[in-house]
Amino acid sequence: MTPRNPNFRTDIERSFARQGLMQTLGASLLLVEPGHVTIEMPFADALTQQNGFAHAGALAAIADNACGYAALSLAPADYDVLAVEFKINLLAPGRGESFQAAAHIVRAGRTLTVIQADVFAIASGGRVAVATLLETAIVRPMRSNRAQLIW
Amino acid sequence: MTPRNPNFRTDIERSFARQGLMQTLGASLLLVEPGHVTIEMPFADALTQQNGFAHAGALAAIADNACGYAALSLAPADYDVLAVEFKINLLAPGRGESFQAAAHIVRAGRTLTVIQADVFAIASGGRVAVATLLETAIVRPMRSNRAQLIW
Amino acid sequence: MTPRNPNFRTDIERSFARQGLMQTLGASLLLVEPGHVTIEMPFADALTQQNGFAHAGALAAIADNACGYAALSLAPADYDVLAVEFKINLLAPGRGESFQAAAHIVRAGRTLTVIQADVFAIASGGRVAVATLLETAIVRPMRSNRAQLIW
Amino acid sequence: MTPRNPNFRTDIERSFARQGLMQTLGASLLLVEPGHVTIEMPFADALTQQNGFAHAGALAAIADNACGYAALSLAPADYDVLAVEFKINLLAPGRGESFQAAAHIVRAGRTLTVIQADVFAIASGGRVAVATLLETAIVRPMRSNRAQLIW
Repeated sequence: MTPRNPNFRTDIERSFARQGLMQTLGASLLLVEPGHVTIEMPFADALTQQNGFAHAGALAAIADNACGYAALSLAPADYDVLAVEFKINLLAPGRGESFQAAAHIVRAGRTLTVIQADVFAIASGGRVAVATLLETAIVRPMRSNRAQLIW
Repeated sequence: MTPRNPNFRTDIERSFARQGLMQTLGASLLLVEPGHVTIEMPFADALTQQNGFAHAGALAAIADNACGYAALSLAPADYDVLAVEFKINLLAPGRGESFQAAAHIVRAGRTLTVIQADVFAIASGGRVAVATLLETAIVRPMRSNRAQLIW
Repeated sequence: MTPRNPNFRTDIERSFARQGLMQTLGASLLLVEPGHVTIEMPFADALTQQNGFAHAGALAAIADNACGYAALSLAPADYDVLAVEFKINLLAPGRGESFQAAAHIVRAGRTLTVIQADVFAIASGGRVAVATLLETAIVRPMRSNRAQLIW
Repeated sequence: MTPRNPNFRTDIERSFARQGLMQTLGASLLLVEPGHVTIEMPFADALTQQNGFAHAGALAAIADNACGYAALSLAPADYDVLAVEFKINLLAPGRGESFQAAAHIVRAGRTLTVIQADVFAIASGGRVAVATLLETAIVRPMRSNRAQLIW
C-alpha cells in the first residue's frame, strides 16, 4: 500500500503524543508502516483487572489505537481518524511482561476503513495471542473537524 | 432480579478495588444493584485522545467493567466474571465533565451472560449518549480459576 | 422523530419488495414508523439449523433488515441504506411459531446511523427474546449509487 | 490441528444436511478440514437485497455456518455447536456468480471457540473480499442438549 501523505509517520507520532491516555497506559508506537501499526505497552500494576492480569479495557485501548493509526497511515495529509465501532474477543488472560497490538488494514475505503488488530502477550517464553479486535474507523479531513464530530 | 449472593455489593466493591486500571482512570462505582451497575469517571487530561476528548479506550474500559459487575451481581458467592467479547459503538465525541457507564442485563444464563452498557457524557447542560457497548461475559466459580483462565 | 421523506412508508415497502431474500424467508413488514421498523417471519422448515430451530442466519437477516429500514425511515427521499457492520448476540434457541425483529434508532447521524433490533420468538405462551443485534448503517443519496458501493 | 472425532467429516455433512436454511439458500460444503470449513453459495435472485446484490443476511448465514462447523471439526464425537454471537463487517457489495465463506479457528477453548470467516465473491475476473465475520461459538456434548439450549 502506498501512503498518500509523505509525512504520515511524523503526523502519526505527533497525534499519538497528544493522546493523554497512551501516556497514562505507558504505551508507545513500536512500528508505523503504510497500513500497519503496532503499539506496545509494558505490564504494570496500574493496568490490572481483579486477578492481576492486564485489563481488557487496556488491551482494547491500544488495539483500537493501533487500528486508527493504521487507517490514518493511508490517508491524505491533514486528515484525522475516529473509531466508529469495534469488537474485541478476549482469547487468553492478559498475562505477560508486555503487550503488543499489531493492526493491519482489512479494507481501505473512501470514507470508512476496516482494520483488525491482534494483541499478544510477550514474555520470556514467547508470545501468546490474548485478543483480536475488528474495527470500523472514519477518515475525514481535519478542516471539517466540527462536521466530523457529528459524522 | 434476586441476587444469589447476599454480599454481592461488598464483593463487587472489593473486586473493583483490586483493579489497578480503574484507579489509574480515576473511576468509581456509582451504583451497584442486582443486574445494574454504573461506573463514573471524571474527565481528565490523562484520558484523552488526539483532539482532547475522552479516548474510546477509556470509555470502553469503564463500560466493559460495568457490564462485568452487572453480571457478577447476579452470580452466587465466590464466583468471578471474565469478558468473553464486547462490541462498542461510538455515538458522539467524549466531551464532558464526567462520564457514566450504566450496564443492565440482557440475558443471564447459567454460564454466559449478555450485558449492555450505555455511556453518557455529563456536563452542566445535561447528559449525552456517547457510546453503547454489548458484551458477553462468562461467570464461573473462583475455585476453578485455572480452568476458567482457559475456558 | 420527524421523517424527512413524506413517502417513507411507500418507499420502504417498495425497497422491501425488491429483496429476493425476504420473499425466500417468508418475511414481511409488520410496522413502519419513523425510526421504528418491525419485520415478521413465520417459522418454517426452510429456515432451520441442525436441531430444527430457526437458524441464527435467518434471524440475523430479518434483524439486519429491520435496522436498515429503521435508518431509512428518517432519511430524505431518494436515499438508500447499506449495512456497514452488525453484531448479533443469540440469547435463546429460535423456537416459536413466528419471529419478530423490532428495530429502533440508537443514533441518527448525517452519514452513519446506529440501530438496534430485538428479535423475539412468538408462540401461544407469549414471546421470548432470542437475539439482539447492534448495527451501523450508511445512508446515502441514491444518485451516488456507484460511489456508495465503494463508500 | 488434530481432530478428536475421527468421523468429523461425516458428522458435519449430516448436520449440514439437516439445516433447512442451507438448502433454502442453495449452499453446500466445499471444504471440511480440521479447523477449516468453506461453504459455497451460488448467486440467485432468491438471495438479493434491494439493489440486486446478495443480501448481507445471506452472506452472514453461510459465514456463521462455516464458523460453527470449523469449531465442530475439532470437537469430540457427539458434540454440537451453537453460535453465541458474531459480528460481520461488509466490505464490498455482494456482486458475483457465487460466494464462498472460508472459516478458520482463532482460538479453540474447552467450552468457547473463536472463529473468523472471510467471505469472497467469485466471478470470472477473480475473487473479491465482500465481508469478514468474527464469531464466538459454544461447543457442548449433545446429550446435554437441554442444558445447552439454556447455556
